[in-house]
Amino acid sequence: MGDIIRIAIDTFGGDNGASVMVKGAVIGIKKNPKVKVFLTGHAKLLNKLLANEEYDKDRIEVVDATEEITLDEKPVEAVKKKKDSSLVVAMNLVKEGKADAVISSGSSGAILAGGLFVVGKPKCVKRAPLAPLIPTTGEPSLLIDCGANVDAKPDVLVQFAKMGSIYMESVLGRKNPTVGIVNIGVESEKGNQLVKDTIPLLKECKDINFVGSIESRDIPYGKVDVILTEAFVGNVIIKLYEGLAKMILGEMKGAIKSSAKGKIGGLLIKSSLVDMKNKFSASNKGGAPLLGLNGLVVKIHGNSKEDEVISAIEQCRTFIENDVSGKIVRGFEETDNVG
Amino acid sequence: MGDIIRIAIDTFGGDNGASVMVKGAVIGIKKNPKVKVFLTGHAKLLNKLLANEEYDKDRIEVVDATEEITLDEKPVEAVKKKKDSSLVVAMNLVKEGKADAVISSGSSGAILAGGLFVVGKPKCVKRAPLAPLIPTTGEPSLLIDCGANVDAKPDVLVQFAKMGSIYMESVLGRKNPTVGIVNIGVESEKGNQLVKDTIPLLKECKDINFVGSIESRDIPYGKVDVILTEAFVGNVIIKLYEGLAKMILGEMKGAIKSSAKGKIGGLLIKSSLVDMKNKFSASNKGGAPLLGLNGLVVKIHGNSKEDEVISAIEQCRTFIENDVSGKIVRGFEETDNVG
Repeated sequence: MGDIIRIAIDTFGGDNGASVMVKGAVIGIKKNPKVKVFLTGHAKLLNKLLANEEYDKDRIEVVDATEEITLDEKPVEAVKKKKDSSLVVAMNLVKEGKADAVISSGSSGAILAGGLFVVGKPKCVKRAPLAPLIPTTGEPSLLIDCGANVDAKPDVLVQFAKMGSIYMESVLGRKNPTVGIVNIGVESEKGNQLVKDTIPLLKECKDINFVGSIESRDIPYGKVDVILTEAFVGNVIIKLYEGLAKMILGEMKGAIKSSAKGKIGGLLIKSSLVDMKNKFSASNKGGAPLLGLNGLVVKIHGNSKEDEVISAIEQCRTFIENDVSGKIVRGFEETDNVG
Repeated sequence: MGDIIRIAIDTFGGDNGASVMVKGAVIGIKKNPKVKVFLTGHAKLLNKLLANEEYDKDRIEVVDATEEITLDEKPVEAVKKKKDSSLVVAMNLVKEGKADAVISSGSSGAILAGGLFVVGKPKCVKRAPLAPLIPTTGEPSLLIDCGANVDAKPDVLVQFAKMGSIYMESVLGRKNPTVGIVNIGVESEKGNQLVKDTIPLLKECKDINFVGSIESRDIPYGKVDVILTEAFVGNVIIKLYEGLAKMILGEMKGAIKSSAKGKIGGLLIKSSLVDMKNKFSASNKGGAPLLGLNGLVVKIHGNSKEDEVISAIEQCRTFIENDVSGKIVRGFEETDNVG
């Protein structure tokens, strides 16, 4: 594809302010010559920040937005009321066909609400899942769904399995990605009603490489490419993953610092630990995509630095170049016609 | 209470064989003068192992059992068919009023099935939850339920909250223990249908100290004493906890060993890491109790050493001395009469 890829970046909402978004955009377009970026936010501030940078003026455009959506607002209300917020302005660019993708480090709830109500989804997509990559001892796995679709039905989970597979194949280059459903055991009689009802549908599904159930203890070992689960459980998994990793590393630091011998030892292993931390950081793979919409929406962490912005730009480019949205929609339309 | 506390120990099923069970029992009765132990299993082997030990002959009794339940058997079938297995023989001692508690390191499924079908439960108890303690940065929390009661209803979760509170107060001495329900956010509108339906019932409940929702990322920080959740989610949490902790510590070891400098550093911090590992080990608090039955059933890890057996004996003694089963049953009978 020779076309320009247009990405709208919401510059508000992150812990590190608009400057990391601007810097990320400037480096991001240098690395990706086909990308054009719209920066949505306070135009005066953004223009001031851009004045210090050297970049291709044709490929970064500031779009003024005078409102902010904060973390403590009710997401749906905020998105509906604050039409001139940087998030809604960015999403409207996709809705109006002026951009292909949105990157935001704002509130998850607002991003999910905006994705659904502003960007919108094709009729054939039942629900739009949020699917972060999670670090494992091997390559990262995709955890789908961690979004707002709690109490999803089996047919919805089957669509998630397909979307996750297309994403891993097209964006991460994983060949014939394996799909496992989160369960409390691998034996066939195990599971809650949702899992028991979903497994036969996954087995029948020819578009995916379904390998059965996965117990949560195997998730950190990267046993499957796509970890399929309903959003409540997905949310519990992703937050426990973050919380427990942070807690263990923090306790370890404390244990090391508690003795003089430990402190010296800690200095000697520091570089090894940094290597490990980097391996575990998913920032080089971009943010969490919200799939199945009329455009790509990527949620990056609230504490993102420019590296994560650059990775997210890369992620959007790969996603658009490989026409992932088109692949998802065509797959579901065919199923609809058959069914 | 001046009465003898009688504990049946299933000596089969563990990874470390019957000898750790025998050693644990011998030390356990020395530490707990009011405890009598029944060892169920191959009598010849057990008597041979006991011949090497010095102990009060009146307080350890061998009960012959000629069958074993293995990990790959279907739990319910195995429990119903293998009447002479060490697990069923131990549980029958409770059923027949000859013992007050059972300790087993066998298959979780068989222990749950045996608890329900052999030990049995009073009518006022709706379901019997499995409630392991999990390590946190502070004191351990009780995670209830991790058992076989998937898709439990709100009234069942309320009973679990009460049982967990009684356990933490009576066995661990936690005053007015806090109860939090696992949720995807702390705001009142968050949750799946089960959580939304359960929260109002928990708020109404005067016997517990309900403090609201807890996100999984806060679990490792010991934010509440009793972590309430439906068994599917509880199972995902406990197994992810174990799997991720093991993975992070393993990766850390690998990172340290990857350089000469790291290896020396690793030796210097070794004692700090052992301190931390001990802090994280729940073995000094006993095993996971299966609550609400006509007697206490405690599941200890398959790889338990004698220390865990000794702690489980201690746990059973405290449980029986404080009449936890009685407190649970009386609480539920009162509710039944009111309702």
